[in-house]
Amino acid sequence: MDEILNKPPSGTRDFLPEEVKRRSRIFSKATHIFESFGYAPMETPAIERIETLMGKYGEEGEKLIFKILKRGEREESGETDLALRYDLTIPLARFFAAHQAKLPKIFRRYQIGPVWRADRPGKGRFREFTQCDTDIIGSYSLLADAEIILVMVRVLESLGQSDFIVHLNSRKILEALCDMYNISAEQKQDLYISLDKLDKIGAQGVEKELIQRGFPLDRVTAIREDLEGSVSRVKEKLIQLKSGKEGMREVEIITKLTAPFLKGGSVVFSPFLARGLDYYTGPIFEIFSSNLQSSIAAGGRYDDLIGIFSKKAVPACGGSLGIERVLMTAHDGAKKEEISADAFVAVWDETFYLDALRLAEEARAMGIKTEVYLGEGNIGKQLGHASDHNIRFCILFGPDEKEKDEVAIKDLQTEKQIRASRSQFPKTLKDLLKKRRLTIKS
Amino acid sequence: MDEILNKPPSGTRDFLPEEVKRRSRIFSKATHIFESFGYAPMETPAIERIETLMGKYGEEGEKLIFKILKRGEREESGETDLALRYDLTIPLARFFAAHQAKLPKIFRRYQIGPVWRADRPGKGRFREFTQCDTDIIGSYSLLADAEIILVMVRVLESLGQSDFIVHLNSRKILEALCDMYNISAEQKQDLYISLDKLDKIGAQGVEKELIQRGFPLDRVTAIREDLEGSVSRVKEKLIQLKSGKEGMREVEIITKLTAPFLKGGSVVFSPFLARGLDYYTGPIFEIFSSNLQSSIAAGGRYDDLIGIFSKKAVPACGGSLGIERVLMTAHDGAKKEEISADAFVAVWDETFYLDALRLAEEARAMGIKTEVYLGEGNIGKQLGHASDHNIRFCILFGPDEKEKDEVAIKDLQTEKQIRASRSQFPKTLKDLLKKRRLTIKS
Repeated sequence: MDEILNKPPSGTRDFLPEEVKRRSRIFSKATHIFESFGYAPMETPAIERIETLMGKYGEEGEKLIFKILKRGEREESGETDLALRYDLTIPLARFFAAHQAKLPKIFRRYQIGPVWRADRPGKGRFREFTQCDTDIIGSYSLLADAEIILVMVRVLESLGQSDFIVHLNSRKILEALCDMYNISAEQKQDLYISLDKLDKIGAQGVEKELIQRGFPLDRVTAIREDLEGSVSRVKEKLIQLKSGKEGMREVEIITKLTAPFLKGGSVVFSPFLARGLDYYTGPIFEIFSSNLQSSIAAGGRYDDLIGIFSKKAVPACGGSLGIERVLMTAHDGAKKEEISADAFVAVWDETFYLDALRLAEEARAMGIKTEVYLGEGNIGKQLGHASDHNIRFCILFGPDEKEKDEVAIKDLQTEKQIRASRSQFPKTLKDLLKKRRLTIKS
Repeated sequence: MDEILNKPPSGTRDFLPEEVKRRSRIFSKATHIFESFGYAPMETPAIERIETLMGKYGEEGEKLIFKILKRGEREESGETDLALRYDLTIPLARFFAAHQAKLPKIFRRYQIGPVWRADRPGKGRFREFTQCDTDIIGSYSLLADAEIILVMVRVLESLGQSDFIVHLNSRKILEALCDMYNISAEQKQDLYISLDKLDKIGAQGVEKELIQRGFPLDRVTAIREDLEGSVSRVKEKLIQLKSGKEGMREVEIITKLTAPFLKGGSVVFSPFLARGLDYYTGPIFEIFSSNLQSSIAAGGRYDDLIGIFSKKAVPACGGSLGIERVLMTAHDGAKKEEISADAFVAVWDETFYLDALRLAEEARAMGIKTEVYLGEGNIGKQLGHASDHNIRFCILFGPDEKEKDEVAIKDLQTEKQIRASRSQFPKTLKDLLKKRRLTIKS
């Protein structure tokens, strides 16, 4: 019972020191690549006005938004005015509308931060998780769409992923498909939502869902045949339609601009790739890595979204990297995180407290990570503590050392102990640490 | 109207790229100092179960907690089950209870992260703000209390603060004062809350509040006299009482262990320093810096808090650094944040898209921050864009360069243009950048 109470809320996580270190290291690798492409960081709050988020994620998404109760006297009304952000894209659109005068005309941004979704928690699915997004605001060029894919691939490579399959499509092709199958404007979004589940539920699952959603049987059959048929046959039909032709042009250009940069894998045209979200308007993509089963990055163009906030048309495209999936599997070749201090000051008794703090400060001033013993127990116990925590050097300064104006330094690995003059001890310790590092390297 | 709608919610902030960079730099300076003392990072989620937070912050604090509505069918009940964290201390206590088997017996931790309080927003007061905490769990030693003050002072120094006044007190002294003034157990917390406002409302304000809270007039008069009288007179009275004597011993030892490490300023005994929070049990402190009017760091010992979660007594002490105040004033001697790319690839037309991406990738492979032009317009306009964004070098590769298998590099500051062979251009650009950096330094 107590154990459960002390766990973090369902779907959220505590991170122990080594895990925090590992995550930070991975985030800073991503940051480094983003900045090498000229992307700049920006941040928005975790909470947004509820009106900002509503009507943007479709019915299914909206159910997953965590809403915050009004405060004070209005608490009892049960009404909500704020909500936790559901993604980093809608807040970006609001941010850009609010600050565009201070931002470059073509604004490349990245953001790594938590988002919250009241999804059913499951293996690898969390209610609080980190998103890692890049977006380009202000460019209609397909070069921008290609760059977003390229920067995501480069980040994924730096995190040990490889052999990417980039699935490409365009909302224009989905529009053409809707024309082909004679789907009404009202049912288009339903079709996209079902298609978005294709890799999870298969063609049969999509068929079943469409029937449940009341799609006419003959059209459902046509869709299933195409889902199971060859891409080239679908392509032939698409090319007959204006929006199909435009979409194909987009896909072909982006393919030409991204395929040469893949060190392994390929770029493929996936006419039924849908991306469930309402706001996409042009090219869309999903990236799979050979190391992972599910998609690891995805995104697309959303030229109409920022206009909702800024009241003027502003083109945009972007992508989101499944950083949590990477974090769960990352084999990025890094060694175990370094948590332990380099040195440790043993403490005789209360009369040596001030000396212990002084010795530690002098060592730190030389760049040596140094901790002071804060527990109870004799020197033997203290040395045991240091060993347990993989601290290599112990600094000893007791009545004997004090009288001789010396410091003893014990190497807990070799068990050797040397003496240094009180004033020279930080330098001696520094030299010992340097030697030790050389030993480890060789 | 639109402008207001696009702002972040009241009391929260958007951060533009330069501000994010500045904040990250300051956070990593703090992190560096924490780690040099042997503190390890850990993280808890932004949301906690509502029961975890309730009953820990006193009546006034509890009102400021942002509560999250239940989801799905239970949404209409208006009930809440989760809340945004109000500080980093209660979540730490839950965290320690949940994970103690995997943590060192004496656990030094730091955490820098957002917390949420539904306070009335005001100048420098936010509803979402960053806290920066250090704590030591598992030590009863006063050396631990002293170290917390020392590490906070060192971080503040690294952020450009100086001349600290450290106000020290102990909850044991406050207990003794309550005995002296004959304050009932029920009214103790009320007294502490009023005393906590002393530097804001003055002795007269405290007197007024205590009368309003129903304290007997004769005791209020005695308290006001002591508030306005000399500390040494109060000390004489305190020393007569057992808990007063113990508290004085704590204050004297911590003074002895911290004062020698201040590069400026001093450590003073402040018998009426209260720290409003319920959970303190021993020494408490507040640090003022000559650069800032209000307190810039504060904390104390809370030996009973972790026991609420872990069901066994675990001593602890810690401090919180007013990092937002530092961020608002920081003169840490850093130059303007570097946001701009080093180089910029101009783009002729669609037939040069792939070349542009290739050139940029080759430059990045040499560690050069390089962006590709994504707007519309001729080369003249593109050069203008690069100048506007303080990008020094422009990479030109048009029909002429392509034919000659060359690349032109234009220095936008000197207006000089040089040519390099297509294959050698990244090296040439790298050399130009090195020279430029030398020029800036000298």
